[in-house]
Amino acid sequence: MATMKVHGNPFSMAAMRVTAVLYEKDLDFQFINIDMKNGEHKKEPFISLNPFGQVPAFEDGDLKLFESRAITKYIADAYAEKGTELIIKNDPKKMAIIGLWLEVEAHQYEQPAAKLARELHFMPLFFGIPSNPKVVEENEAKLSVVLGIYEKRLSESKYLAGESFTLADLHHLPTLHFLMMTPAKKLFEPLPRVSAWVADISARPAWLKVIAMLKN
Amino acid sequence: MATMKVHGNPFSMAAMRVTAVLYEKDLDFQFINIDMKNGEHKKEPFISLNPFGQVPAFEDGDLKLFESRAITKYIADAYAEKGTELIIKNDPKKMAIIGLWLEVEAHQYEQPAAKLARELHFMPLFFGIPSNPKVVEENEAKLSVVLGIYEKRLSESKYLAGESFTLADLHHLPTLHFLMMTPAKKLFEPLPRVSAWVADISARPAWLKVIAMLKN
Ligand SMILES: N[C@@H](CCC(=O)N[C@@H](CS)C(=O)NCC(=O)O)C(=O)O
Ligand SMILES: N[C@@H](CCC(=O)N[C@@H](CS)C(=O)NCC(=O)O)C(=O)O
Repeated sequence: MATMKVHGNPFSMAAMRVTAVLYEKDLDFQFINIDMKNGEHKKEPFISLNPFGQVPAFEDGDLKLFESRAITKYIADAYAEKGTELIIKNDPKKMAIIGLWLEVEAHQYEQPAAKLARELHFMPLFFGIPSNPKVVEENEAKLSVVLGIYEKRLSESKYLAGESFTLADLHHLPTLHFLMMTPAKKLFEPLPRVSAWVADISARPAWLKVIAMLKN
Repeated sequence: MATMKVHGNPFSMAAMRVTAVLYEKDLDFQFINIDMKNGEHKKEPFISLNPFGQVPAFEDGDLKLFESRAITKYIADAYAEKGTELIIKNDPKKMAIIGLWLEVEAHQYEQPAAKLARELHFMPLFFGIPSNPKVVEENEAKLSVVLGIYEKRLSESKYLAGESFTLADLHHLPTLHFLMMTPAKKLFEPLPRVSAWVADISARPAWLKVIAMLKN
C-alpha cells in the first residue's frame, strides 16, 4: 500500500483538519509542503490536484481529493477499523447525529470562527495588516450565538454528537487553536461546558502532533 | 412506521433540498408549514427542533434533525434501497468522489449562489429591497470561477460525481432554480456543459414536484 500524501502547509487550518484525522487513525502519511508565499498553490502541478487552488490536496493511491472535510470523511470511512473510531458505520440514525454536528460546524461555526482567526491572528501576525473592528464585532456576535448553543448541547452530552469524541468535534480543532491565541478567547471564558470541551479535545495526543508540526 | 415530518416553508431553499430528496426516494412525508412572517421559527416549539431558529427541521420517528444537508444525507443513507440511488454505500473510494462534490457545493458554490439568489430574487421580490450592486458584482465574480471549474468537470463526466445523478448534483437545485430567474443567468449561458447539466437535473420528476409545492 502506497503512503498517503497530504499537499499543504502546516499553518493551513484546512490542512491541519486532515493531519489531525491521520494521527487519530494512526496512519502513515507524507506531508508535501506547498510554497504558498510563492503562489505554488495557484500553478501546475498543484491546480491539477485542486482546481480551486487551495490547500490541502490529498492522494491515496489513485484516489485524488481536495476539500478538507471530504478528505477527513473519506479517511474516517475507508480506515474505520484503524485508530480512533470517528464515525459510526451501519447505524444511519447514530451516524445522523454525527452528521448533524458536522453540518453545524460547516454552516454555523466555521464562517465566523475562520473569519475571526484570520482577522485577529493571521492578518496581523503574518501580513502585518491590522484587524478590521467592524468585521471582528460582526463575527464575534455570530460566533457567540453558536457557542451559546454548544454550551447547552454540551450539558446534554460530553461531546457534540454524544458520549464519545467524533469527527464532528475534531473538525473544530484548527479554528479553536488559533482563536484561543486571540482576544476572541473572551467569548469562551463565560461558558464552562464549552471551555471544558475545548480543553479536552485540544489535549488529545493526535492534536498535539499536529501542533508540533507548526514548530518545525 | 410513522410518516416523516419536514417543518419548513415551501420557498426555503434549504427545505426544498430536503423535499427533493424525499421525492427522489419516493418516500411519504408530512410538510408542516412554519409561519416565518410571524417569526414562528424563532419561538417554541420550533426552536426545540432547531436551536438556530432556521428551517427546515425534520423528524423520522424519534430522530430529530436540522441542517438541510444533514437531513438529506441521513435519508440517502437510511433509505438507500428506496427510489433513486443518491450515494454509494460500501465503496469508500467511490463515495469519496460524491463526498468531494458535496463539499464543493457547500464550501465553494453555496455562498455566492445563495447570496445572489437572495440579492437578485428574494430581496426585491418578497421585501421590495433593491439589490446591492457591490454584493452582486462580488458574488457574480466568485460564482463565475466555480462555474468555470464545473464546466471542465462536466466535460469529464455527465454529472459532478460521475455518470449518474447523485446527492451532490441534487444539493445545487434550489439555488439554481432561483438564480435562473435572475440576471445571474448570464453567468451560465456561455457554458454549454453547465447549461446542459442545469437543464437535465432541473427536469427531474422529483424536482418538478418540489416546484409544484411553490404554486399551492
Ligand atoms: N474549503 C476548503 C478551504 C481551503 C482553504 O481555504 N485553504 C486555504 C489555506 S487554510 C488556502 O489555500 N488559501 C489560499 C486561497 O484561497 O487562495 C477546505 O476545507 O479544504
Ligand atoms: N444551513 C442551514 C440554513 C437554513 C436557512 O438558512 N434557512 C433559512 C430559510 S432558507 C431560514 O430559516 N432563515 C431564517 C433565519 O436565518 O433567521 C440549512 O442548510 O438548513
